[in-house]
Amino acid sequence: MKTILVLGAGRSSASLIRYLLENARAFQWKVIVGDVSEDFAREKLGGSPHGGAIRFDALDSASSMAAISSADVVISLLPATLHPQVARYCLQLRKHLVTASYVSDEMNGFHTEALSNGLLFLNECGLDPGIDHMSAMEIIDRIRQSGGNILSFESFTGGLIAPETDPENPWRYKFTWNPRNVVLAGQGTAKFIEDGKFLYIPYQKLFQRLTTFDIPGYGTFEGYANRDSLKYIDTYNLAGIQTLLRGTLRYPGYCEAWDIFVQLGCCDDSYPLEDVDQMTHASFISGFLPGNTGDGDLPMRIRRYLRLTSGNGLKMLEWSGLFADEKIGLTNGTPAQVLEHILNKKWRLREVDTDLIVMQHRFVYKSGSVRKRLNASLTCRGSEGFTAMAKTVGLPLGIATKLLLTDKIKSRGVVVPVTAEFYVPILSELREIGIEMSESEGEG
Amino acid sequence: MKTILVLGAGRSSASLIRYLLENARAFQWKVIVGDVSEDFAREKLGGSPHGGAIRFDALDSASSMAAISSADVVISLLPATLHPQVARYCLQLRKHLVTASYVSDEMNGFHTEALSNGLLFLNECGLDPGIDHMSAMEIIDRIRQSGGNILSFESFTGGLIAPETDPENPWRYKFTWNPRNVVLAGQGTAKFIEDGKFLYIPYQKLFQRLTTFDIPGYGTFEGYANRDSLKYIDTYNLAGIQTLLRGTLRYPGYCEAWDIFVQLGCCDDSYPLEDVDQMTHASFISGFLPGNTGDGDLPMRIRRYLRLTSGNGLKMLEWSGLFADEKIGLTNGTPAQVLEHILNKKWRLREVDTDLIVMQHRFVYKSGSVRKRLNASLTCRGSEGFTAMAKTVGLPLGIATKLLLTDKIKSRGVVVPVTAEFYVPILSELREIGIEMSESEGEG
Repeated sequence: MKTILVLGAGRSSASLIRYLLENARAFQWKVIVGDVSEDFAREKLGGSPHGGAIRFDALDSASSMAAISSADVVISLLPATLHPQVARYCLQLRKHLVTASYVSDEMNGFHTEALSNGLLFLNECGLDPGIDHMSAMEIIDRIRQSGGNILSFESFTGGLIAPETDPENPWRYKFTWNPRNVVLAGQGTAKFIEDGKFLYIPYQKLFQRLTTFDIPGYGTFEGYANRDSLKYIDTYNLAGIQTLLRGTLRYPGYCEAWDIFVQLGCCDDSYPLEDVDQMTHASFISGFLPGNTGDGDLPMRIRRYLRLTSGNGLKMLEWSGLFADEKIGLTNGTPAQVLEHILNKKWRLREVDTDLIVMQHRFVYKSGSVRKRLNASLTCRGSEGFTAMAKTVGLPLGIATKLLLTDKIKSRGVVVPVTAEFYVPILSELREIGIEMSESEGEG
Repeated sequence: MKTILVLGAGRSSASLIRYLLENARAFQWKVIVGDVSEDFAREKLGGSPHGGAIRFDALDSASSMAAISSADVVISLLPATLHPQVARYCLQLRKHLVTASYVSDEMNGFHTEALSNGLLFLNECGLDPGIDHMSAMEIIDRIRQSGGNILSFESFTGGLIAPETDPENPWRYKFTWNPRNVVLAGQGTAKFIEDGKFLYIPYQKLFQRLTTFDIPGYGTFEGYANRDSLKYIDTYNLAGIQTLLRGTLRYPGYCEAWDIFVQLGCCDDSYPLEDVDQMTHASFISGFLPGNTGDGDLPMRIRRYLRLTSGNGLKMLEWSGLFADEKIGLTNGTPAQVLEHILNKKWRLREVDTDLIVMQHRFVYKSGSVRKRLNASLTCRGSEGFTAMAKTVGLPLGIATKLLLTDKIKSRGVVVPVTAEFYVPILSELREIGIEMSESEGEG
């Protein structure tokens, strides 16, 4: 009997918990789900005889240590900032840890100690990061084994809504993942390499410098660059590559509209606004406009101020209620917090909504003297009460945990799933469930 | 015999040290100057029998404590980040401290302990902050005492070069103060109040939203908003004021050109650039341009990318050598560090250059039913080897120290010079030296 402790029972945990419970009888697992709300945790277990719910607060070390001490492996869906703390508990209690979060410097610092204790601290094993790593490395290794030389690799992923959901929503977007991360996305400078030259895009230009992607069956999408593509030269072992760019996909038009928020300053999270309790959606926006553009309605003032050449973005803001004389409903907050609160009024995912994951890798490589292209695309839709986000984040975590508990994975220390030991069995099982990349190749 | 310890013997210390030495015989002072370079410190003393030079490193606590223990008061011109450390030494050794730096939260935290030990920790007693506080409060108190009600207060200051210096320099600017602060200026969001409404300007719009000032004898200047004008509602006791805006003055055209750096992303200090040792001025700039604007020369590509309606700013960048195939001369650095290094090649202040300080306060107030305007302007030019910056920063520090050592100042704790106890005698002595505001009034 092995005990798996799942930390965090939020929306993205549903598929993971179902997967673990479905496998629990065959593999003799006990699945304990811990959340700050024990009711929340219990609800996710649906009365399974293999499950148990506990209250879990990572900042309370006594109860955290007690919960972790009785587990064989910990899967954490907690906010990434809590992962170093969870990792310290796991080190002390000699437990494996599996997460879908990016490896922070702090997490990396645990590598030697985890290794010497025979522990696996597997991170970046969800969708993005996760499936993107594994599917990319499968192709990269295959091209290399056939003697190919990779010149260019672009990889973009988006968590969106399916075409039939909210057809009147001009953004074609709702919050299917952490809303705060959506509002803060892209702050800082994006770094990548293109045709052998290092290029940099600051926040104020990010949503204007778009890359277009065609996703079979779903049409055209636009993508903006992620913050740091350069570190993947090492992660993917691609030294000498001419172009490497990772990014985020949105339906066309989203970025043009979002750039209005960026230019106005609505996404700033560094200071509290004044008088938020008195504020309306419209007065929130007008606080970012010069006082001397007073004539005309808000959209007209914004258009003049930002010298917009199209009114499309403004129509999307209007749909989101940004120009309404409606009270915000908060007593205080940063611009980013207020914007998230307003957007959430219309972007909250309902039970009836279907979300959609789209991912595409685009490779250019040389095979002998022939230049070749390879595109690999993945799409995944929510179904049967499970969002596509929950499936694509949770299932790789669940499969990796199964492989670990059945001794199929020998890697130890702080690792990300970029080797065949991970990607072969995980992608194989995902394929059986219907989550897979479809490839198209050609010269060019 | 009283001992004054001056920390930091950089360019801005010259006037302060001269002032202290000139007064040393009459007041029986010993003036010790400490710097990481003892030679630097000695040079500033010019062989005065009242002076002494020491090596001072604020991070070496043993030698710092020894130096401070023999002083009666410490005047620090060190970087502001070192002031909490210096303040801790002063608390431990029961010494007064005088600085020209903004009061940080950490410094504020020493208030109660300084107060209970009878110590004065006087901060913001240079030019800006410093003379701006004192001259503003003198006018504010005067208007109030005559029954006036202040509606609007705008205050802008600039450290520039005199008209006869560098006539071919289209920026009309050189580094007369910390170059790093000039490159990083304005990052974050500027907050102020205008006509009773709180307004916010993000960095990407800051150098586009300018206020114009006429400085008698020097013509028109442009100003951009400082980061936080709102805190001065409390500092100046101006609750209920309709407009309060503080900012920085530049010659016309500077902000248009600087905005090109902002939009490109050249002022980012948050990440290291790749391959800086291989980089030229031109390749530094082209790293911020999309690869697909490849046709044409750099200025043309920038003009197209940023949709500039004028070529004036680009001419100024060209004068600064930004488009030259000249090696940077650094092995690594952030964009901000590289930009500072390039600009410093032509913006370094020479001995023959004359700098210029301009400051203007603009008040609107109601006296009975009459709406009145009051403008107060100050200009100061460098002379006899002393920059205007050194004079306007150093002399208020020196005068305040004299007042403290002659028991003319009773305030204790962490304070800024906004009360009559400070501004009356300090402004009076500055007037004698020729540093004074000239006022003009009218209805309107």
